[in-house]
Amino acid sequence: MRQSLLFSKTTKEAPKEEASVNAQLLIQAGFVDKLMAGVYSYLPLGLLVLKKIEGIIRQEMDRIGGQEVFLPALHPRAIWQQTKRWEYPEMFKLKNREGKEFGLGWTHEEIITPLARKFISSYKDLPVSIYQFQNKFRDELRAKSGLLRGVEFLMKDLYSFHRDEKDLDQYHEKVKAAYFRIFRRAGLKKETYLTLAAGGTFSKYSYEFQTVTPAGEDTIYLCPKCELAVNKEIIEEEKFTCPECGNKKLAIKKTIEVGNIFKLKNKFSGPLNLVFKDKDGKEKDVFMGCYGIGLGRLLGTIAEIHHDDRGLLWPEEISPFRVHLISLSGAEKEGEKLYRDLLEQNVTVLYDDRADKSAGEKFAEADLIGIPLRMVVSERTLQKNCVELKKRAERKTKLMKIKEIKKCLN
Amino acid sequence: MRQSLLFSKTTKEAPKEEASVNAQLLIQAGFVDKLMAGVYSYLPLGLLVLKKIEGIIRQEMDRIGGQEVFLPALHPRAIWQQTKRWEYPEMFKLKNREGKEFGLGWTHEEIITPLARKFISSYKDLPVSIYQFQNKFRDELRAKSGLLRGVEFLMKDLYSFHRDEKDLDQYHEKVKAAYFRIFRRAGLKKETYLTLAAGGTFSKYSYEFQTVTPAGEDTIYLCPKCELAVNKEIIEEEKFTCPECGNKKLAIKKTIEVGNIFKLKNKFSGPLNLVFKDKDGKEKDVFMGCYGIGLGRLLGTIAEIHHDDRGLLWPEEISPFRVHLISLSGAEKEGEKLYRDLLEQNVTVLYDDRADKSAGEKFAEADLIGIPLRMVVSERTLQKNCVELKKRAERKTKLMKIKEIKKCLN
Repeated sequence: MRQSLLFSKTTKEAPKEEASVNAQLLIQAGFVDKLMAGVYSYLPLGLLVLKKIEGIIRQEMDRIGGQEVFLPALHPRAIWQQTKRWEYPEMFKLKNREGKEFGLGWTHEEIITPLARKFISSYKDLPVSIYQFQNKFRDELRAKSGLLRGVEFLMKDLYSFHRDEKDLDQYHEKVKAAYFRIFRRAGLKKETYLTLAAGGTFSKYSYEFQTVTPAGEDTIYLCPKCELAVNKEIIEEEKFTCPECGNKKLAIKKTIEVGNIFKLKNKFSGPLNLVFKDKDGKEKDVFMGCYGIGLGRLLGTIAEIHHDDRGLLWPEEISPFRVHLISLSGAEKEGEKLYRDLLEQNVTVLYDDRADKSAGEKFAEADLIGIPLRMVVSERTLQKNCVELKKRAERKTKLMKIKEIKKCLN
Repeated sequence: MRQSLLFSKTTKEAPKEEASVNAQLLIQAGFVDKLMAGVYSYLPLGLLVLKKIEGIIRQEMDRIGGQEVFLPALHPRAIWQQTKRWEYPEMFKLKNREGKEFGLGWTHEEIITPLARKFISSYKDLPVSIYQFQNKFRDELRAKSGLLRGVEFLMKDLYSFHRDEKDLDQYHEKVKAAYFRIFRRAGLKKETYLTLAAGGTFSKYSYEFQTVTPAGEDTIYLCPKCELAVNKEIIEEEKFTCPECGNKKLAIKKTIEVGNIFKLKNKFSGPLNLVFKDKDGKEKDVFMGCYGIGLGRLLGTIAEIHHDDRGLLWPEEISPFRVHLISLSGAEKEGEKLYRDLLEQNVTVLYDDRADKSAGEKFAEADLIGIPLRMVVSERTLQKNCVELKKRAERKTKLMKIKEIKKCLN
């Protein structure tokens, strides 16, 4: 992509009305735009990152047998009354011209469970797991954390269906492993901990994935030995002790919840009558699990973790481009050639071909945008038949012969 | 994908409550599910087709310089009042807990125009074109045509921004060509015609892409010579004459509008104050165009056009899988091997590995699902080291040596 044609532009100053670091950086660098509190537009650079995150999650969901679907956002009132969740205060409600009432989905158990009823009738139809990427809506009063707390937000939600608790438990472990793979690939491995949290009616616990950062709105009690944490909401119940090893020296950390996995058991299959005929001929409730990741929140968390005072620093696998190529005055021709060569090698490139920007402006913008590898071609580097390489995370630069670039990118 | 694991199942009978052929077929074959009138869930097979259509459109939009974004569905009231479209009867309206009013987007001029204001200030920033794939919502009273008329529906909307009318006109021609490429690739070339329609306030005409089918709710007057049509809504104005060649022998056809392109000129840039400083130093309104394709409607139209009395017939480029492989009793082992071989060759396969279905049931379901190429492996075909090939659109079958399959798929 030529930067001269890019729709978005960076700004010199961070937006004043944003309190959160993630939104400040992402808006200043031209990744997102704020329409109103908790509602953001993804601009071309931001959408590239979002699609990379989506691609990672899709791959990991497919790996554990997930089948992708796409469910509606507009839900009929009746089904939410059956599960007694119609009165949930964060549900947006609306009427059509005929007076029929609808809610906007903030989760999809009420849709997926009746859908599963159409296809599950025997133990032979189990297990099965279904996921989607879909916009959720939540009437959030305090949407002040940028992308961390959305009123409208893209979410991956996976639902699994099982014969019994044992099978649910086994799948739950698989999802746990898949989630850790996702957070590792998204660059959050070091900071993200499995955390026990309140379980709701049918389980003692649920599990959250909590990422440590000062921007966090949650608090966890972390056992450094087990790398297991307990959410503050249940730490009294747990007597301020690691449930794994009994350790009482827990570290208190601010965190963002980047994912959660939950054993629903028959909480929804019961009221929505999702049953199956088992091998023994008996009709039983299907056991369910649900597993969420908010993509915008994940993106915001990555921005909170991976930045410095000059801007963003994207982890390689989710960077909008692999290389930020900058041509300076006098090296335009060689810049063009290099740009085309890189594209031919299937390297994704943001190419700063702008004639009306100084070297200093281009470097500052490259730091703000945060692509992992910067490549500068100038009269000076061309004297040595070189380009200058610099990793975004490092200070030092090095010269490399143009003809050797191909090797270093393989 | 193993059919034994597929979430959806086909049904013997078409759903009785659906009047439209597209929804009957797509539900019966397990591609979509109806949540309520005008609101459908995409099941795994349906989502595969939707994603193929999305991929084609994305490729063609990128080819004409489009940059992809993702805009919100939830819109603040104020911006729609500025363009005097807040009272549009098909807009869903809702309030949050604090009493603030929002609309659900049925189009995005009100969002993209203020966004473009942030990045467009000079003639140097023009032209630029921006598109997205996003769910639209429309309070539709008569949502009785299956996927053809949605209350919630996925849409591609492209918006272009220009210095003057000439540049807009030139881009308009490019989009026209891109749209024809899209409809050709989606299997609708033969039936789809450029159609003059009412233009609104600022243009005499807009252009629609109308696909001829008895299921259509629109009527066009088609000039067989020019392959240009006139929408019934303006045919009197046009004196029942082809505007291109003066022909008065126009054929009256029922059609579905599968796309539209519209010169907005300064209809939205005016009230929303999207201006730029031109070369001559003067401030001028940006000229805009907008260009839509409803993906669900397109999918529904394809189902209306491409089916027979046994089921769907997907055009190759949008088929959920390239091959429907069926193993019959006694050929399970060879079926498994063939399945794995095809996957290794990057051929997408739906593999009917179900042990509890008869050959007749498997064939009937394959016809209903409509994958272009059926491949059967049975004891009979194995005696000749062959598989049986059958194109969905043809009656005849032929035997092919297993070792030669690779060649025929390249």
